[in-house]
Amino acid sequence: MGPGPSDVAPRVLASLARPTIGHLDPLFVALMDEIKELLQYAFQTSNELTLPISAPGSAGMEACFVNLLSPGDTAIVCQNGVFGGRMRENVERCGATAIMVEDDWGKPVDPQKVEAALKKHPEASVLAFVHAETSTGTRSDGATLCKLGHAHDTLVIMDTVTSLGGIELKVDDWGADAVYSGSQKCLSCVPGISPVTFSPRAVERIQARSHKVQSWFLDMQLVMGYWGGDSKRAYHHTAPVNALYALHETLVILKEEGLANAISRHSKNHRALVAGLEAMGLKMAVDEAWRLPQLNSVCIPEGVNDAQVRSRLLRDFDLEIGAGLGALAGKTWRIGLMGHASRERNVILCLNALETALKAEKFTLESGAAVQAATDFYQSM
Amino acid sequence: MGPGPSDVAPRVLASLARPTIGHLDPLFVALMDEIKELLQYAFQTSNELTLPISAPGSAGMEACFVNLLSPGDTAIVCQNGVFGGRMRENVERCGATAIMVEDDWGKPVDPQKVEAALKKHPEASVLAFVHAETSTGTRSDGATLCKLGHAHDTLVIMDTVTSLGGIELKVDDWGADAVYSGSQKCLSCVPGISPVTFSPRAVERIQARSHKVQSWFLDMQLVMGYWGGDSKRAYHHTAPVNALYALHETLVILKEEGLANAISRHSKNHRALVAGLEAMGLKMAVDEAWRLPQLNSVCIPEGVNDAQVRSRLLRDFDLEIGAGLGALAGKTWRIGLMGHASRERNVILCLNALETALKAEKFTLESGAAVQAATDFYQSM
Repeated sequence: MGPGPSDVAPRVLASLARPTIGHLDPLFVALMDEIKELLQYAFQTSNELTLPISAPGSAGMEACFVNLLSPGDTAIVCQNGVFGGRMRENVERCGATAIMVEDDWGKPVDPQKVEAALKKHPEASVLAFVHAETSTGTRSDGATLCKLGHAHDTLVIMDTVTSLGGIELKVDDWGADAVYSGSQKCLSCVPGISPVTFSPRAVERIQARSHKVQSWFLDMQLVMGYWGGDSKRAYHHTAPVNALYALHETLVILKEEGLANAISRHSKNHRALVAGLEAMGLKMAVDEAWRLPQLNSVCIPEGVNDAQVRSRLLRDFDLEIGAGLGALAGKTWRIGLMGHASRERNVILCLNALETALKAEKFTLESGAAVQAATDFYQSM
Repeated sequence: MGPGPSDVAPRVLASLARPTIGHLDPLFVALMDEIKELLQYAFQTSNELTLPISAPGSAGMEACFVNLLSPGDTAIVCQNGVFGGRMRENVERCGATAIMVEDDWGKPVDPQKVEAALKKHPEASVLAFVHAETSTGTRSDGATLCKLGHAHDTLVIMDTVTSLGGIELKVDDWGADAVYSGSQKCLSCVPGISPVTFSPRAVERIQARSHKVQSWFLDMQLVMGYWGGDSKRAYHHTAPVNALYALHETLVILKEEGLANAISRHSKNHRALVAGLEAMGLKMAVDEAWRLPQLNSVCIPEGVNDAQVRSRLLRDFDLEIGAGLGALAGKTWRIGLMGHASRERNVILCLNALETALKAEKFTLESGAAVQAATDFYQSM
């Protein structure tokens, strides 16, 4: 129950262990077609260029930036946590300029600041933001930010590593142009794969490039030759065959449950967890309006030893929760309720374990109140 | 029995399906330490910076080039197949100049040409070559080429995607500086991971860089923070946890068999296959001295339909062999005997299947001669 990798369903683990077949085998090519269609469903998009990058989310991020930026370009980058900072690194390593729009960690990206930056920098060709900041547990307003970018003629890059499959995410309705995610969060697949999708406008920009993409491995014009709609698949690199079996199984599970049901399940378990944490006397670190149901940032109470509590949870309850990152290190815990792990039994396990660990820290609380509050919440549903 | 991914051992597939744990979990960190040590054994190196890149071999290649080259640098690149051409792409995308040393496809890299290029280009800071060309089944003389590079003060980048675990490869003895491989060839792990190793001289060059590595994901200074010897592991990206379980199991199997035994097994099965193919009247495409035992290039006889034979093998025998690539497309087949797939039963299966498919093509041959020749070879051992 950390910030990911989340627990992987037994069905997905079993699919991983199927015999490896060739990456150009007709059976595997048929599986690739299904993965593409299932990813379009998950992203709510009809973008042709929708596929899994054969590497973790950080490489998915890099794929978006290196394909859409050239040296000398300007990008407006919103930062309200760790991953906005990583975006800046990517922009600068492309030889482009990053105009930073900063917000406090734990607050959403402020659209007014973004609009001001867009007005001040009409030369910007890209707007980039993180939809769901994994480092803080904060959602930003994807629809509004995409709209702002388009009103000022930028392409919009959106990080959905932690949002895909966990909260509302509508790539086509919002008009995001380059969107990347990770396999190991709300999809509950094994880590190592990054689903991406590019709008037709983004594809046009890629095809019109005069400067070669600096990464051969992530050059979407080459990747398209393997993943494209053509019947003839051109070899680019050897696909991670077994990891794609797992991604496929994961997406089939999502389709079976239905995206709307998955989203409301994440919301329900989140509210139960919050009811319990509050009954325990703990405070959430993010305003209710912007909390991520799949990643719950909790303030560590004064006098409680962060590392000791996390070690005790791991040792005595086999339970991992996440530490705070960057500006929030030592100040928050991050409790994940992602994908397959977003379940009532995990909520109860976590509340009970945390209560025990906090008692050992002499944090005063009423025994059993947290679990009771969560149980009451479930019964009220 | 294509050019990889090779067949994965049941033990490795089973290890893949173990429950996913966190990439910063103490148990996982201990596994990382073991993987590093096992990779040092496989590469025959004591290089501290030895680790698996969380992406396929193409990304391992890119990691070597982007970390060792800066804009304006010069690299001498040997090409005798597909992958030398990919190296050139990497050099140029770093803003560096590639001086090409070309040899015919199916011939080894010619050390005399390399020496001439090194003399003509004293400004070159890198020499790059492919030890085992997967596109042609040809070995080049790694020891001699590394020595030449050093005599002319270049760092040496060596592609060992297909050689690691299959033929002699001595990173320290030869003095290679940046070496990458793939998980899915003679290691017989699932595809998607690229083992790399960097010499202390390479690490020095990386640490002395004044120009940031263009790839954030592949920046070895950052990757080192996670994989380094420090007790404190800094989060860089989420490691592909389950794929690393599989890599670990693969390397344990290699250690159990012993590198020398694995190499002689590859050699023995190769010689049996060649005995059978020659008894069938087929010709090998590569001179005996430079043949890769793990990847056998066979000339397609006149009048035989390449695609039809491969389709028949797949349909009737569930057997994949590789097509020729680039200059050798339509002219050769590539029969893999890699890692777990390098076994007597596969040699016999392949010879028998190929005989049947060639008969359907009206290629005249003596029934059973191929299998008999291979069997005789095994009995003579």
